[in-house]
Amino acid sequence: MSIWKRSLAEIFGTFWLVFCGCGSALIAAGSSGATHGMGIGFVGVSFAFGLTVLTMAVAVGHISGCHLNPAVTIGLTVGRRFPVRDVVPYIVAQSIGATLAAFVLLQIMQGNPEFNLATSSFATNGYAEHSLGHYTLQAAFIGEAVMTGFFVFVILGATDKRAPAGLAPVAIGLCLTLIHLVLIPVTGTSVNPARSLGPALVAGGAALDQLWLFCVAPTLGAIVAGLLYPALAGHTEAIYDACAVPSAR
Amino acid sequence: MSIWKRSLAEIFGTFWLVFCGCGSALIAAGSSGATHGMGIGFVGVSFAFGLTVLTMAVAVGHISGCHLNPAVTIGLTVGRRFPVRDVVPYIVAQSIGATLAAFVLLQIMQGNPEFNLATSSFATNGYAEHSLGHYTLQAAFIGEAVMTGFFVFVILGATDKRAPAGLAPVAIGLCLTLIHLVLIPVTGTSVNPARSLGPALVAGGAALDQLWLFCVAPTLGAIVAGLLYPALAGHTEAIYDACAVPSAR
Amino acid sequence: MSIWKRSLAEIFGTFWLVFCGCGSALIAAGSSGATHGMGIGFVGVSFAFGLTVLTMAVAVGHISGCHLNPAVTIGLTVGRRFPVRDVVPYIVAQSIGATLAAFVLLQIMQGNPEFNLATSSFATNGYAEHSLGHYTLQAAFIGEAVMTGFFVFVILGATDKRAPAGLAPVAIGLCLTLIHLVLIPVTGTSVNPARSLGPALVAGGAALDQLWLFCVAPTLGAIVAGLLYPALAGHTEAIYDACAVPSAR
Amino acid sequence: MSIWKRSLAEIFGTFWLVFCGCGSALIAAGSSGATHGMGIGFVGVSFAFGLTVLTMAVAVGHISGCHLNPAVTIGLTVGRRFPVRDVVPYIVAQSIGATLAAFVLLQIMQGNPEFNLATSSFATNGYAEHSLGHYTLQAAFIGEAVMTGFFVFVILGATDKRAPAGLAPVAIGLCLTLIHLVLIPVTGTSVNPARSLGPALVAGGAALDQLWLFCVAPTLGAIVAGLLYPALAGHTEAIYDACAVPSAR
Repeated sequence: MSIWKRSLAEIFGTFWLVFCGCGSALIAAGSSGATHGMGIGFVGVSFAFGLTVLTMAVAVGHISGCHLNPAVTIGLTVGRRFPVRDVVPYIVAQSIGATLAAFVLLQIMQGNPEFNLATSSFATNGYAEHSLGHYTLQAAFIGEAVMTGFFVFVILGATDKRAPAGLAPVAIGLCLTLIHLVLIPVTGTSVNPARSLGPALVAGGAALDQLWLFCVAPTLGAIVAGLLYPALAGHTEAIYDACAVPSAR
Repeated sequence: MSIWKRSLAEIFGTFWLVFCGCGSALIAAGSSGATHGMGIGFVGVSFAFGLTVLTMAVAVGHISGCHLNPAVTIGLTVGRRFPVRDVVPYIVAQSIGATLAAFVLLQIMQGNPEFNLATSSFATNGYAEHSLGHYTLQAAFIGEAVMTGFFVFVILGATDKRAPAGLAPVAIGLCLTLIHLVLIPVTGTSVNPARSLGPALVAGGAALDQLWLFCVAPTLGAIVAGLLYPALAGHTEAIYDACAVPSAR
Repeated sequence: MSIWKRSLAEIFGTFWLVFCGCGSALIAAGSSGATHGMGIGFVGVSFAFGLTVLTMAVAVGHISGCHLNPAVTIGLTVGRRFPVRDVVPYIVAQSIGATLAAFVLLQIMQGNPEFNLATSSFATNGYAEHSLGHYTLQAAFIGEAVMTGFFVFVILGATDKRAPAGLAPVAIGLCLTLIHLVLIPVTGTSVNPARSLGPALVAGGAALDQLWLFCVAPTLGAIVAGLLYPALAGHTEAIYDACAVPSAR
Repeated sequence: MSIWKRSLAEIFGTFWLVFCGCGSALIAAGSSGATHGMGIGFVGVSFAFGLTVLTMAVAVGHISGCHLNPAVTIGLTVGRRFPVRDVVPYIVAQSIGATLAAFVLLQIMQGNPEFNLATSSFATNGYAEHSLGHYTLQAAFIGEAVMTGFFVFVILGATDKRAPAGLAPVAIGLCLTLIHLVLIPVTGTSVNPARSLGPALVAGGAALDQLWLFCVAPTLGAIVAGLLYPALAGHTEAIYDACAVPSAR
């Protein structure tokens, strides 16, 4: 399929990830007034992020491989599962999708009479004083790097042709849920530079200042995983040549 | 299979969607007195709605395709996955199922000594003063249209013959869970005109006045998705010729 | 496989359903003191019950069909998926497994210094003054009958050979989760006479007095489903001849 | 694949189990201040533990079988699914992975200004005064032994070649979720000596004193299951010769 159509699929998919993932955090996580005790909390947000990947991996995995994440694209390239020449278009597409989603989400939030962009964190990622639990820069860096490394490791394993057929979208989506179940109080959970970029462009300020960490740490983790999985398991063809692993076409 | 049997399957399926989805919201979402802190909240309601579709897609997908939703039927028709001549019977069946469910649910609620139909929203959908978070009409419209569009997009992708075999019911069901995890505070989450109709007929009043939005916005989103997916992915046969995609028989 | 081994598998499976399902309700649903706000609530109990069936259907479905429920056994027999001569051994086995589980659970609860059998409902089912939400007998009866009917309908559909292969354990398990997400405040959720019997034998009193409803209503629903599914879908062989549908062997 | 690579896969997998499972408990379970009511509670921790196994079983099941648990390794050996000569390297690898994870987790926690190792239980397992619900030693022993026994029974059944293909990682992972949904207030849930060891080495004190129970009770349960499943179902080859059941290679 053409790089244009595959990039378009990445735009849709990354839009979905940010729109529903960050949307669940902004719209439904808390609870007050009439909905006291009904909010979805971090458990709901964790499932929302994971289910965006599960649903899109099934819906467009056969089109673009459904990376939705620059760190994943880089990790798969290092692991020789993705062609170098497609890396830039994918990352551009993911950034566009994430940014569009943040701005559509802003339209919806401005329909909430209690919403105030100036005081909202707008589901951005952060560390130190911008971490929910005030975790330090160092803790945030370790958390994001280790989690993204294992995420890419799971993606490489789940799309290995020796893995159980058909489970890759479930395992990869629920892996993102798992990571959110742990990391939200530390950084809000990024493991995805595009997911951090979109809301940061809307919110500005500290979120933009701290964006570097959510580009560097996930990418570092992804590169290590891209080197490590093939060293452990040997180079293999992917089981789905489109799902998470679109070979050159 | 005859259109009568397929329509009957749609009645059962849409009954199940409204009975359990709206039932979970009415019966189990909140918590007070002896069950303080035990209520299922919006997370539980989100899983309930999604699991109605997951279970019925497995149970009757091979009979009717398990649309359970007029917007889905219209979207699949626009996407050339469903014959035009069956659209009206399906929508009539879905409306009957949803309405029956709302009335059986009313029987159960009237067995709760604290229930009062006059003051209950009866799990209807709404916007502005009838939105849980008081979101405006515009926010509600954007939310319902975008979400239904992606829902139909995921259905078209998940039932594409190039998607992983067997995951369609899981991905489609959990996609509805995901949508609820985001949208309940905005509109109560419809993305389905039949789901809005049933409870509105029981509750009357504002729910009926606002019903138009939950017919128009989801249908609009579904039509866009029905045009967009084939443009992106090419026209394809469905992998399950019954699950979510009953071709003419 | 011999009826003895199949019955033994039913004993293990029903033990697991009651031990973990009722155990989650007794041990982990509430929260107080050191664990304030950490309890699993009705959402956790709902997943616990559903996952007992999902896990056992995968583990012993190929041995006994994994009914774990007299109403399911009767519904499958009416739907001509299970031989009449094996109905009694299965129901006896299910009752033994459920009762054993309730007594082992009692051993664990007696290790909790705050537990008092005289004041605990011991996860029994009930209606009217013994319903969590004080729902009437009539509401409880409708709820149990309708839910069990749909449960057996989903089982019959999911094990139909035209359903997606391999999803039956997931759909059937999560169907039980779904039913619990709705019905816990009404009756505590039975849809299974054996599940009601075990804890009632430990708790005695009102739970035994009201046991009849949790035998009659589920069985009635199951019989209707056993008649209805084949009328709608035609008689079919099961896709797994063991999973939920052990034909005579 | 060589025992070295398989052991390395067990190190990664057990690291992941302890890092995310115990990490979710330490970082995200509670909620206070800015995140009041948002914590994931025992439900979130239960899903975190289960999803570590689900994701790793898909990712490295084809490499090492993905035991991640000395009791599972012993149970599979007793059940003649795993070669005796590989038991020691696997248990050593699992212990290393769990211990590494606990120390990396400590690095992250030390970035939380409110964390104090001296007063934290550091997600260790315990009974009596170190049980969240103050359950006695006897209750803890019964709970750990019965749960591990059923866990190994489910693993043996799910990897039986007659079970539905491809569901083993889902059933086994969600079985661990189910066990946590019940047992956290009793012991914090171990069913895995390596999972207990790692945090105990960091926390020291009572956790080390009580470690014996979390080695003995799970192992006892696993041995019984390893004898019982083949007696019930007959000896069978595993469906995945790598997933949970790496035969000698």
